[in-house]
Amino acid sequence: MAITLYDLCGRDERLRFSPYCWRVRMALAHKGLDYTTVAWRFQEKEALAFANYDKVPVLTDGDTVVTDSFEIMRYLDRAYPEAPVLGEGVSLQRVMFFKQLVERSITPALFKIVVLDLLEAIHPDDRAYFRKTREARFGATLEAVSNPEQGRQQLKQALVPVSAQLKESLFLDGETPSGADYLLFGSMMWAYTVSTEPLVEESDPVAAWFARMLEVHDAAAGQAMTIRDL
Amino acid sequence: MAITLYDLCGRDERLRFSPYCWRVRMALAHKGLDYTTVAWRFQEKEALAFANYDKVPVLTDGDTVVTDSFEIMRYLDRAYPEAPVLGEGVSLQRVMFFKQLVERSITPALFKIVVLDLLEAIHPDDRAYFRKTREARFGATLEAVSNPEQGRQQLKQALVPVSAQLKESLFLDGETPSGADYLLFGSMMWAYTVSTEPLVEESDPVAAWFARMLEVHDAAAGQAMTIRDL
Repeated sequence: MAITLYDLCGRDERLRFSPYCWRVRMALAHKGLDYTTVAWRFQEKEALAFANYDKVPVLTDGDTVVTDSFEIMRYLDRAYPEAPVLGEGVSLQRVMFFKQLVERSITPALFKIVVLDLLEAIHPDDRAYFRKTREARFGATLEAVSNPEQGRQQLKQALVPVSAQLKESLFLDGETPSGADYLLFGSMMWAYTVSTEPLVEESDPVAAWFARMLEVHDAAAGQAMTIRDL
Repeated sequence: MAITLYDLCGRDERLRFSPYCWRVRMALAHKGLDYTTVAWRFQEKEALAFANYDKVPVLTDGDTVVTDSFEIMRYLDRAYPEAPVLGEGVSLQRVMFFKQLVERSITPALFKIVVLDLLEAIHPDDRAYFRKTREARFGATLEAVSNPEQGRQQLKQALVPVSAQLKESLFLDGETPSGADYLLFGSMMWAYTVSTEPLVEESDPVAAWFARMLEVHDAAAGQAMTIRDL
C-alpha cells in the first residue's frame, strides 16, 4: 500500500521542520517503509478536510487515515510490527512519560531559543497566521517569548537526565535508536532545521547523539534541507 | 531461601528512610516476597564487609549477595521473573532513563527541601559523619544547601512531565505500579519519612499518586514509621 505523509513546509517547499512530522519520518525510516510527502502549509485546512483534522502530521496508508504524531507511531507499530518504535505494555507506558518530558520541558525551552528564526523559516504568507495563533496561545508577543539565553539554560536543565543516560548508552533506547530517540530528535531537528543558534555545548553527549541521529537510517534526517542551505 | 535487606535506620531503629532502600522494599513487596531487614547505621562499615561494599541497600538471598539498589531490582527480576519491576530490553532501557531523572533532577531538589530535617532524623552518633561526608560532596555547609523554597520550585519543574503523565494513568507504569513508580516513590518516601515540609501542592496529581503508593501492596509503605510517629 502507498503511504503518504502530509508534512509541514516553510518558505522553501523543501524546508520541513515540524517536530511532530519529524518523529513520524524517523519512525517510517526505522521501519524501512517507502513513503511520499505532501508539502502542507499552516492555512491549508481544506487539504486535510478528508482526515477531519486541521494540522499535520496526517498519514494515509492505502485507505487508512491516521492523525496525531503519536497515534501515527502507534499505528505503524500495529500495521508493521517488525522493528517496533514505541513497543507495547510497560515499554509504551514509559515512552509516554518521555513524550511528556519532550513536549512539556524540552520543546518549550527550544521554542524560546528559535522562535524568531522559526518565524523567518515560515512562508511569508503564513507569518501573520503563525504570529496570531502563537501569541494567543502564549499571551505574549513572539518577541517577548524569544529568550535564547534563558531557553538554553532551561534546555540544559531539562536535558540533565538525557545527557547522563547518553553517557551509558549510544542511544536513549539502547544500542540502536527507537521511539524515545525519535521523540527527542523530532524537537531538536525542528530547532536545527530553522536556526543556527547553538542548542547544547559541543562537549555535551547530546551533541554527539544528535550527530549520530542525523546519520542513522541512511541519513534520513541528515540529508534534509535546513536553513543553512537557503 | 531467606531474603535479608540491610536497611538504613535513623535515631529510632524503626525509622527507615533511605530512598535506595525504599525502592528495593517496594520491589520486594511488588513480588510478594517475604524478607527481614537488618537495621544499619552509616558508620557500620564492618557489618557490610561480607558484601565488599560500604553502603546500603545490600540484599542477601540465601548465599547470593547483591549490592546497589538498581542491581538488586535487576537481580529480583532475574530470580523471581513473575511480576517484573524493571523488565528487560527497551522497557529496561527506558526505566534507566527515568532513574537518571529521579537521581539527577528530583532527588537533588528534595534534598534542598529536607536536608536539615534529615539531619535531625539521623542517629545523633551519625550526624557528624553525615555532615562531614555530605558537606565534602557538595562543597557547602548543610545549612547553605538547605533552601526549601528553591527546592520546591526545582521539584515542581522536574515533576512537570510526571504530573502530566499522572493525569493520563493511575501510575507511571500504567494501571498498576512497577519500576518507574518505585524509583520515584523511593525518593519521595525518603523526604516524607524525615520531614513534614510540603513537597507538592495538594492539587498536583503527584500528591494523589503518592497517597495511592502508600496504600499499594497492603500498605507496605503506609505502615512504616515516619518522623510524625516520634
